[in-house]
Parts: sequence; structure tokens; C-alpha cells
Amino acid sequence: MRFIDAINEGWTRRDTLLCVGLDPDPARLPVALRDRPDAILTFCRGIVDATADLVCAFKPQIAYFAAHRAEDQLEALIAHIHERHPDVPVILDAKRGDIGSTAEQYAVEAFQRFGADALTVNPYMGHDSIEPYLAWPDKGVILLCRTSNPGGSDLQFLEAGGERVFERVARLALDWDRNGQLALVVGATFPQEIARVRGIVGEMPLLVPGVGAQGGDVRATVTAGRTRSGNGLMINSSRAIIYASRGEDYAAAARAAALATRDEINRWREP
Amino acid sequence: MRFIDAINEGWTRRDTLLCVGLDPDPARLPVALRDRPDAILTFCRGIVDATADLVCAFKPQIAYFAAHRAEDQLEALIAHIHERHPDVPVILDAKRGDIGSTAEQYAVEAFQRFGADALTVNPYMGHDSIEPYLAWPDKGVILLCRTSNPGGSDLQFLEAGGERVFERVARLALDWDRNGQLALVVGATFPQEIARVRGIVGEMPLLVPGVGAQGGDVRATVTAGRTRSGNGLMINSSRAIIYASRGEDYAAAARAAALATRDEINRWREP
Repeated sequence: MRFIDAINEGWTRRDTLLCVGLDPDPARLPVALRDRPDAILTFCRGIVDATADLVCAFKPQIAYFAAHRAEDQLEALIAHIHERHPDVPVILDAKRGDIGSTAEQYAVEAFQRFGADALTVNPYMGHDSIEPYLAWPDKGVILLCRTSNPGGSDLQFLEAGGERVFERVARLALDWDRNGQLALVVGATFPQEIARVRGIVGEMPLLVPGVGAQGGDVRATVTAGRTRSGNGLMINSSRAIIYASRGEDYAAAARAAALATRDEINRWREP
Repeated sequence: MRFIDAINEGWTRRDTLLCVGLDPDPARLPVALRDRPDAILTFCRGIVDATADLVCAFKPQIAYFAAHRAEDQLEALIAHIHERHPDVPVILDAKRGDIGSTAEQYAVEAFQRFGADALTVNPYMGHDSIEPYLAWPDKGVILLCRTSNPGGSDLQFLEAGGERVFERVARLALDWDRNGQLALVVGATFPQEIARVRGIVGEMPLLVPGVGAQGGDVRATVTAGRTRSGNGLMINSSRAIIYASRGEDYAAAARAAALATRDEINRWREP
């Protein structure tokens, strides 16, 4: 299934805009798991199986696997999601950014080796750094636009030709998106900017990190970013869900946190 | 040894500004190697051993390993360089870009797992996406500034507040560089822009891709980018060197190409 169709099904059939981010920091894993050789996989699988019916997507962050020589666990995790929860697409958060044959290799890494349904990509190198991913028409390509960290303003908020750099990225994404594959990352800490981006890109999906541990306001995020049908958002929460408990009840605690977040989001979906 | 000191030694003692990029595309490897399980490692090791005395750095591109589940070969390649050619630093070209604990994990991946001496990083997310790498004071952190691909102008060439975005990146890098760790990527196809960046950053090293297969002019690059002492540049060539021959003589052909490129660069170093 195409990524965009899978996301749409999550929004409508499972009635959720929540994306759970899988950032398995070894220092924060439940004590009972820590010494297992497959601790990262076991932890993430527990979270996945406890929350799959509550999410529109899962988003593993590749750095947490790569730093610990655990690419095999990332492969196994994504294969597990596809097998056990075939309706839930996987966004590989890797923020790749390079050109030509190198970007082609990154596409093979994400889509073929890891089997991801979508990949986050950095737009700084421009259109020919996006092009190689568009050769995979079923896959989602999610460009960084306006990030929620303090340094996000250093470049993204510069004003050039009457608009901010992040607004230019949104307009460029609309131009580049010949197959309906693109989406944008827009941080939850800036609701006005979510609304600006939504105004530029029409129905294009937005991936919104920063809700939960990073302090973004759910109501402001949803009302600023929803489409007219109350969809269009993948609202990511990582730490507030996956580290809801450090004990052996971590999966149940993650489910409770995911349920509360999904419901809080859904309160504000109807225009 | 600190990355910056190792690069300086290459410029002065080995008298070379050449950086050889290791982009081992499986489709372009010598036929004799292709079916070996460690083809990528064997190929790169052949290039490394044939050219180490001619370079100031090696720059493996991680995508070519990651796409083919060959992280172990990348680890072995960098370990081989450190063991056999301990004076030659390794730049891991991965163009990472993320924040906080995720960037900390990328730093562990590059500097601890792979043992790289420097890492390329994307500046789009701003200062707090650079900060975690600066916690490794011996390591080099090489920010994308002005890239040589056609799409490089989409964002980098926007004019904001009287300067181009890439010029702003150069000025920010100067501000952020409290330990003398930063360097910048500036493409060889834009000599005037290399000169602009050199004018902003003083003695900061510049990594210049685009010479060779990408068509950048060596004389224009060197005269635009050299420091007053005739150093300051890591001029990268990948394909023109590593694919100089597709036959079994690939290593000797790479050496001949590297020698010619180093000498052509050195013709223009003296002001």
C-alpha cells in the first residue's frame, strides 16, 4: 500500500493522528531489559504491540540503533511491525540529505534494506537531493521544514524575498511533489507557523514532533494544522509515551499514555 | 591526535591538499571483486593502500555501506586506515542533522563505533544540532555550507538580510567554533563563492567536493580557497580516482590519478 493511503486509513478507520516515536536510548530502557543482547528490539516490540491500534504510524529514529551496532534489531523491528500490524506504516527518521548516486543509496537503505514506508529528508541541498526518493512512488518523503528546537530559527526563520526560509521550503515541496509523496516536518512549539505551512501546502500531510516531553500544546497544534476534514497531521510523541514507566509495566504505561494523547488530539480534530 | 592537527600535518609534511572520497558503488566495482562477500572492503582497502601517502584525508561515504548491510566493512576499513596509515585522518561523510539526544547518538555512531576523526553535518536545524558533536573536542565537524549540485541554490543562495544563506552559515560556523573543530563544505563549481566563504572564515578548513568527475576547475578552486600559507583546503575527488580503471589494475590506476590530481593542486598553492 502507498504510504499516503496507509496514513489516510489510520486517520479515518483507526481514528487517530498519533505517531509514536521509537527512540530507544539504552540508558533509559527498563532495568529488567538492559542486559539482554536484543534489549532495544524487545523494548520497541513491547511498545509497538501495546499501541499499534492507537497510532497512524510508528517512527523509529535510526541513530539509537546505529550508535549501538543494532541495525539488525531495526530490521527485525520493522519486519515485526509489517507482519503483526500490516496496516501501520513505518516512518524511518534518519533526516538523510545528499545528492545523486549517494541519495539513491540512502533510498535503498531506507526502503529496501529496512523496509520503511517513509523517510525523513533534509532539504538543505535542494531539489536534486529529493529527486532520487521520488523514484520510489509508493514511499513517503518527509522534508524538514520548521523544526521545534531553539536553533531551528538560525536558518529556517531567515527572511528572504518576503518569506521565511521554512515557508520557501513548503512552497518548493508543493512544486516538487509530482506523485503526492511529500510531507513536511513542522514543530509543535510554533502553532502560528504550522498554520502558515498549512495555508501554503493545502492537504499535504504534516509530521509534527514536539508534543509531550517537548512541551507543545495539543489544542493549538491540532487547530492550527488540521485539514478541513480534520486530518492531515501525524502528531509525534516519543519520550512521553515510551518512557511513561521505567518498570516492567512499561508497555502498559505506554499504552495508557498513547491512549490519553490520542484522545486529547481527537478532541480538537473537528473544525 | 586532533583532526585539525592531523589535517595540518597532511598539508605540510605530506604536502598534499587531496582528499580521496570512498564511494564504493557495488555496480562500479572491478569485475574480479564483485562476487566476494567483502568486495567493498577489499576494493576500498586497495585504494587506500595505493594512495595514502598522497592524501590529507580519506572520506568514506556511509550510504554506500549502509545500503548493502556493510557497516562491518566500514568499521574494518576505518580500523585498517588507522592501523596502517595512522597519520591520515578519516572523515565520515554522513551529513547527519538532528538535535539533543539524537545528535548525541549520531556522535557515538561516527566517533566511537566507526572511529572517524571527523563527520559531515547538515546545518539546517541550527546551533543545537551542532553542539553535541562539539563535546568531542578532538574531532572535526564539517558543516554543509555551499554545495556544488544544481539544487544547492534552492535554499543556500537565497538572499536574507543582505547576504546569502550560505554566507550566513559561514558566519554562524565562525561563532559556534569555540574549540577550533569546525570546517565547511563548499563546492568546487563555484570559485567566487569559495572566495566569499574564505573571506568570512579566516583560516577555517574548507572541504571542497566537485573536482574531477563533477567538473570543478582545480586552478580556480585552489586560488579562491587557499589560505595565506597555501593550505586550508581538503579538495575531494571520488569517482575520478577510485574508478580510474575497472580492471584488476584499479589500485595502480587510482594512484596515478591521485598523483596527477595532487600535483595539479600543488601547482596553484603558492600565492
